[in-house]
Amino acid sequence: MAGTVYDDPTFFAGYAALPRSASGLDGAPEWPALRAMLPDLRGRAVLDLGCGYGWFAAFAARAGAARVLGVDVSARMLARAAQINAHAAIEYRQADLETEVFASAAFDLVYSSLAFHYVAAFADLLARIRAALRPGGALVFSVEHPIYSAPTAPAWRETEDGRRIWPLDRYLVEGPREVEWLGARVAKRHRLMATTLNALLDAGFALERVEEWAPSAAQIAARPALAAERDRPMFLLVAARAPS
Amino acid sequence: MAGTVYDDPTFFAGYAALPRSASGLDGAPEWPALRAMLPDLRGRAVLDLGCGYGWFAAFAARAGAARVLGVDVSARMLARAAQINAHAAIEYRQADLETEVFASAAFDLVYSSLAFHYVAAFADLLARIRAALRPGGALVFSVEHPIYSAPTAPAWRETEDGRRIWPLDRYLVEGPREVEWLGARVAKRHRLMATTLNALLDAGFALERVEEWAPSAAQIAARPALAAERDRPMFLLVAARAPS
Repeated sequence: MAGTVYDDPTFFAGYAALPRSASGLDGAPEWPALRAMLPDLRGRAVLDLGCGYGWFAAFAARAGAARVLGVDVSARMLARAAQINAHAAIEYRQADLETEVFASAAFDLVYSSLAFHYVAAFADLLARIRAALRPGGALVFSVEHPIYSAPTAPAWRETEDGRRIWPLDRYLVEGPREVEWLGARVAKRHRLMATTLNALLDAGFALERVEEWAPSAAQIAARPALAAERDRPMFLLVAARAPS
Repeated sequence: MAGTVYDDPTFFAGYAALPRSASGLDGAPEWPALRAMLPDLRGRAVLDLGCGYGWFAAFAARAGAARVLGVDVSARMLARAAQINAHAAIEYRQADLETEVFASAAFDLVYSSLAFHYVAAFADLLARIRAALRPGGALVFSVEHPIYSAPTAPAWRETEDGRRIWPLDRYLVEGPREVEWLGARVAKRHRLMATTLNALLDAGFALERVEEWAPSAAQIAARPALAAERDRPMFLLVAARAPS
C-alpha cells in the first residue's frame, strides 16, 4: 500500500496542518454528506479502514458504537490517533488494506474516508470487506473522484477569457497516478466511477447512494475558495449494503 | 421535450449523414457495450424510448422479441423508421417522453439510446418507466456522459506542450445546456452521474451495471480518431432492474 508516505516526516508535518487533520471531521467539507449516508451506530460494531488520526473512530464511539476497530498502515498516524482520539470502545491496529483479512461477519459498518484510491487490489479488498460484514451490513466510503485523479497535469488552468477549467485527459485510462502533495510524491490509483460501482456489484453489494460532492451555498459563503469545487468534483461518496 | 430539433430539416439532413443513422447500430461505437447489457429478448415485450430511425426496434424484433413499441417525439424520425425498419412485431408511435404514460406492467425491457439527456422531468419519467415494466423487468439506457455535457465550451483544447485536454467546468452545476450541433441549437440537460443513479434508486430500481464507454484497442485501430475518446467519456451506459 502506497500509504506509507504518511510515515514520511515532511509529508506528515504538512498533513498535520491540513484543516481535516487539525480540526477533525468538521475540517472536511464533504463530511456532512458522508455522515448523512451512515446508519444508526448505537450498539454497532464498526471497522474504519484508513482511520488516520482516529477522528471518525471517536465520532462513532461517541455516537454509541459498541466497538470500533480503526486500522491504518501508518504507525505514525496510529500513534497520534491513540493520543488524541482514545476511547474505551476503540481499538487501533496497524494493517495493510492490500492484504489484511478481517474477522469474519464481525461488523455492521465498514467505513473508509479517502483511503481506497491508494489500494491497487480493490476487488480483492471488497471481497474481504464483504466477508467482514454481518448480513445486511453497510459499507460507506469516500474516494478521490476520478475526474480529480485522471489528468496528466491535475491543476486548474485559465482560458484566454479568464475562465477556470480543469484540464481533463486520460479519464478512461485506469491505473497508477503519481502526484506531488505536501512535498512528497504520492502514488494513487485512478479508477473509473463505473469500475468502482461495478466492483461493488460484482462483490455482491447493493448500491444505495452515490454522491459527487459539491459545496453548498452556505459552505461557499463561509469559504469562498470552495467555489472552484463546483467546476470539478474532488470526492466520490458511496453507500452500499451487503445482502441480508 | 427539446427533441423537436429532430424535425428541423437542416438538422435532420445532418443527422441522417451520421454513421449511427446511415449504418444503424454498427455505426455507433458504444453499441457493443450497450448490447452486452441486454437481457435475452426472445418472446419479450420491449419499449424503446426515443427510437429514432428504429434500428434498435428492428434489432429487437430480429432477436425474437414478441412485441416492440418504438416511441419518438419526432414525426420525421418515425416516418423514416416506418420506411426502413418496418417489422410485423414493431409498432411506432409519436409520444413525448416528458409526459407520456405507458401501458401498465406491459414490458420486460425498456431501452433508450441517447434520449434521456433531453428530458427535464427525469425522476418523473423513471416513475412512469417503472410502472410500465413487469416485475423484474430491465431498464437499459445510454445518455451523454456528464463530463461531456458539463463544460461552458465543450470542445478539445491543446496545451502549450501539445496535449489534448477537455476543458471541464460547471460539472457540479446541473441544469440546461445548449450546444451547436449539425447547424442547429440543441437544448439538453446536464445531470451528474450521481443524480442519474440516485434517481434510479429512488424510483425503486436496483443498479446492475454502469459503464463509462471507452473505445477498445481494436476500435481505435479501425478508427484512429476514436483515440480521443480515452481522454474523456462521451457516453454513460446503465442497466437497472425493477423489483421482482
